[in-house]
Order: sequence, then structure tokens, then C-alpha cells
Amino acid sequence: MPDVHVDQPTRSVSYQQLTALLRQIFLAHGTSPGVAGVLAENCASAQRDGSHSHGIFRIPGYLSSLASGWVDGKAVPVVEDVGAAFVRVDARNGFAQPALAAARPLLVDKARSAGIAILAIRSSHHFAALWPDVEPFAEQGLVALSMVNSMTCVVPHGARRPLFGTNPIAFAAPRAGGEPIVFDLATSAIAHGDVQIAAREGRSLPAGMGVDDNGQPTEDPRAILDGGALLPFGGHKGSALSMMVELLAAGLTGGNFSFGFDWSKHPGAQTPWTGQLVIVIDPDKGSGQHFALRSEELVRQLHGAGQDRLPGERRYAERARSMAHGITVAQADFERLQALAEN
Amino acid sequence: MPDVHVDQPTRSVSYQQLTALLRQIFLAHGTSPGVAGVLAENCASAQRDGSHSHGIFRIPGYLSSLASGWVDGKAVPVVEDVGAAFVRVDARNGFAQPALAAARPLLVDKARSAGIAILAIRSSHHFAALWPDVEPFAEQGLVALSMVNSMTCVVPHGARRPLFGTNPIAFAAPRAGGEPIVFDLATSAIAHGDVQIAAREGRSLPAGMGVDDNGQPTEDPRAILDGGALLPFGGHKGSALSMMVELLAAGLTGGNFSFGFDWSKHPGAQTPWTGQLVIVIDPDKGSGQHFALRSEELVRQLHGAGQDRLPGERRYAERARSMAHGITVAQADFERLQALAEN
Repeated sequence: MPDVHVDQPTRSVSYQQLTALLRQIFLAHGTSPGVAGVLAENCASAQRDGSHSHGIFRIPGYLSSLASGWVDGKAVPVVEDVGAAFVRVDARNGFAQPALAAARPLLVDKARSAGIAILAIRSSHHFAALWPDVEPFAEQGLVALSMVNSMTCVVPHGARRPLFGTNPIAFAAPRAGGEPIVFDLATSAIAHGDVQIAAREGRSLPAGMGVDDNGQPTEDPRAILDGGALLPFGGHKGSALSMMVELLAAGLTGGNFSFGFDWSKHPGAQTPWTGQLVIVIDPDKGSGQHFALRSEELVRQLHGAGQDRLPGERRYAERARSMAHGITVAQADFERLQALAEN
Repeated sequence: MPDVHVDQPTRSVSYQQLTALLRQIFLAHGTSPGVAGVLAENCASAQRDGSHSHGIFRIPGYLSSLASGWVDGKAVPVVEDVGAAFVRVDARNGFAQPALAAARPLLVDKARSAGIAILAIRSSHHFAALWPDVEPFAEQGLVALSMVNSMTCVVPHGARRPLFGTNPIAFAAPRAGGEPIVFDLATSAIAHGDVQIAAREGRSLPAGMGVDDNGQPTEDPRAILDGGALLPFGGHKGSALSMMVELLAAGLTGGNFSFGFDWSKHPGAQTPWTGQLVIVIDPDKGSGQHFALRSEELVRQLHGAGQDRLPGERRYAERARSMAHGITVAQADFERLQALAEN
């Protein structure tokens, strides 16, 4: 679904209203009530916070994947307790977010008692933004780091053909004087969703984002999507980080590498079937003082150095606006969602 | 000390010979035998592996810092066991490497039993490459991630003045068919040591590495060192990662932020007094299969995609050459080292 254009009629929906509508849509397309609730809240949060490439824009992709039989919308994740600080989840070919939700209480308990804990999710489909997976930990005073691999579309630095996914890394840390510090960055030069949005809107991309199907640099998002590929951000460094995401989110969890699954027998499949890693730390075990006060000190210094906007702040501002005045969506998009809910 | 120039007379030294010589130097300049041994091995390893900005080039900086009274070369680190997966070390104003060495057995035990473990080092001076801190874990079949903050010299993305250090991130993972996969990347666009080397050699830097003392882009390494600053790699993404390093290596450990110490009363001080974080994971708890076989699969695929050189491979090649034929150093540098050992 296209983003809001200036010349389109729009309407406002509340977060609760949008979540309920999305939940109905997921339910009508083959997910269990639990999965529908988790995905609806995740997707509505992205739309609410201005993460438009992971908001309602994603709904057709979710439904297409569900209809193809590629992902199991009713999968029940299996949580395994394998150590004082290690939790494993087999998502059983379902979505990653319900798997994280199922393991979350055990993961938090372990992080608080052991000081750090790791969650290795495998056989999971992640089709959403990554920041919603880490932000709630920081709201509880914990530090969280997550990585998820996706599907082959990024050319490793120095290589000739794509291998990595966009492989985002997300991080969240509490602070005393405000909302948590949260970032979510694709290790590709641009997120895949943003390429799709640019293609739909007919916009060119900045240089250095991707290559066409001959491996030549291009600024045309369609050329990237039609047999081309993305580049890593920051040259060999971003490429090294993307490799780390493959190793941790897939190699370690037992999930598929971004090049490791074949969805050719499921036309319409769009959700990458991989793995996800989450590391949660109790930061107050470290310093012998309150971590949130120290992170607040860093924030003060960042403001003093002239950085006006911290990672995550744009989302919080959008969130506040959405909660006060509703979420603005195109009228046509809203009607499409309503039709999908009745499907 | 300058790097080897083509027109300089050189000589070959064995790794053992260089380590012994460096150990003598550290001993002669105020370190305890234990600290001298750890630092000598670390520095000789960097020289052996072609990490020239962290090899013998660093010796004058180490000695200057020791002479200034800024760092305690005889500090005895205090290891604290604070949870099933959490180890803390107070380096007591000594070097970071001996603190890591002191905590290492406990850290490895915890990682193997709990599945993951974290080491928070504070009040430590890190003046070396970061890869030697993680590579040994991978040689034992473990995955390791480390971060260390340094001293204000990097302008956060969107800010006007420097705040972050070069804040490297290092990662190591075992693989079945070869040496571990290891990377060590500064979150600055260039490592500080490489700027120093370029300045001494009178070379220009590529565009985008740093700014002069007016905040204007410059390719002159001297302008960067004389009141200028570095930029993060990869724009806002590298900047976010550098911020994460401040939060984890300093905020969480209880060490100083890169802007948080004042060495003005110690002329000659060069070693940043901060903190370091190390996370060690037992990867075989994750997948239910051998992690090293999966990382080997990724390596095969990377080669197949045309990436000839994996992170770390250049170092292994240099290492093999050095072990077979000795380490080549400038004759003048070697004589300076000999003189320092007799000091």
C-alpha cells in the first residue's frame, strides 16, 4: 500500500481502531487469534510511529505469504530452556514476533538473575521493523540488542553477486530523563521497504544504494528490485556487520541463512524464513550505579555537541502526535484494509 | 614509530624475539612482569599480523603514558563474580588486557555453563587493536563480541563538535574449515592510528574521513590531529553504533565515557581511561548442530559469491609469513626498541 501522498484524501484512525482492524484482517487470513493480536499491534505501532515501510504497507505481503502456504499463521512456538542464560525457540515456521512473545518472560527472568541472557529464535518469519522487538526491554530498565537476517538481496563488499539479507541490528537502552534510546538500522545501504516505496512512488534513490541485474550501480529502485541488489552501508564495515548478523541470527540459532531457503514452490511467498537473535542485559549489574543516569548523561552531552535528534526521537514524536490526533492514513488505503477485514 | 618504508634498511625478527624485547621495554618503564608479558604479546601479535597502527608504532605512546603517571602499569585487576553470566572487573587504572586476562577463565566457564556471559571492565586503558581480545575465544569454539570506547575525537552524525571515541567493535566466530572469522572495525570512518601514520608519512586521506578545527571537511591528517576530528563511518548508522559503544563499554561498565576523563594534569598521557565490554556465547547451545559447520557453509557461499578475502584473512596470511620468515621491521625502529629496553 502506498504511503500518504499530499494530494490524496486522508482520514484519521486511532491506534486502537487500527490495531483492531489489522487484527481482524490477520484473523480473516489464516492466523490464530494470538498471532493476529501480536502482528496487528506490531504493524499498527509502526504505522503510528511513522515507520511507514513497516506499517500497513506490509499487509499485502503478509497476506500473500499466508495465502501461499509458505508461513504458518497458526504455528505454536516451542520455548526451550537450555541454560541459566540461554533460551531457544522453535517458531515452527510461524512468525518471529509471537515466538519472541512466548519466550519473553523466561528471557527477562534469566537476564535479571544471570545479568545477561540470549534468545535464539529459529524457523521464524520476520517481516516487520526490528525496533518494536527491543524497545519494550528498555522500558523495563534492560538493555537489548537484536539481529535478524532476511533474504538474499545485498552484495557483500568485494563480492560479485548478492548473498546477505538487509540484516538489521536494533538496540535499546533505558535513560532516566526520557523515552529509551532506540535504533534500528539495516546493514544494507537502504531498507528493502524503502526501495519498494520509492519504486511505487516513482522516485530515484541516492547513489550508492544498489546495483542493477548486471551488477552496475543504479539509482532506479525498479532496477534494484528487478534482478538487481542492494549494497551494504559503509563499505566493508557494514558488510562485516551483515555477515555477523547471518552468523548470529541464522548460524547460531539454527535458522536459515538469507540464501538458505527456497520459496519457489510457494508463489506469493514474501516473508523470509530465517532466524533471530535477541540479547538482553541487566545494565545495573555492571556499573554499580544506575545505568539510566549514565545514559542520560550521554544524552545531555550529545545535545550539547549539537545533535538535536537522538535515535528513536522521531518515532516518539510521531507516536505522541498519533496518540493525540490519530494516525493519518490515505482514505483509499483505509477502505482496502476494511475490505480485507471482511474477506 | 614510522612504518616500514621501501627505502629504509630493514631487518627480520622472530615473533618470540620481538615479544621478549617488548616485554623488556615494558618492564623497564614501570609495569609489573605480568602486565609486561600481556602487553608485549599483544603488541608483537599486531606487528606480526600486519596491524601496523597497533604494533611497535604504539610503544612511544605506551611509554609516554606510563611516564606521565596517568596509567598504573602495576595495577592488579579485581575480578567480581556478580551473576551466573556476569563478570565485572575493576582494572584499577591499569591496562585493559591484563584485566581481560584475569577474568578470562571465569568468563569462559560462565559462557559454557550459562550459554552466554558478559564481562564489564571499568577503569581500564585500552591502547591496542581489539581483535586480539576476541580471536582466542573463537579458537576455543566460542563466539565473542567486544567494544571499547576511547577518547573524544569523532563528531556524532548531525552534531557540531566531537564527542565519541573511535569506538571499535570486534567480533570472532569459529569455523570448521579454517581460522576463525574475525573482524575489528572502528566506528569512525578511519582508525586514529591510521591518521597518525598518514600524518607521519605526509600522505593525504580519502574524502569523508574527518574535519579540521573549524568543522570543515579535510583530507589533511595533520588538520584532523591538530584540533580537528574524525567522522563516523556510514553516516547516521555508524554514529548510532558508536553511541552504542559508549553506552555499553562505558555507561554499563562504569568506565568513563570518551569525553569523561581529564588528562590535562598528566602531560604525555595518551591512553584513554575508559571501559570495555566483552560478550561470549557458546554457539552450540543455539542450533542443536555444530555452529562451526554452519559458519563454514557461510564462508563457502561468500567465496562462491566472489568475496575473495574474508575479514581476518589478511592478518592470517601476514601471520603465516611472519612465523615462517620473521617479522620485517625497519632497522632504525629495531635499534630504538633496543635502546628503550635498556633504559
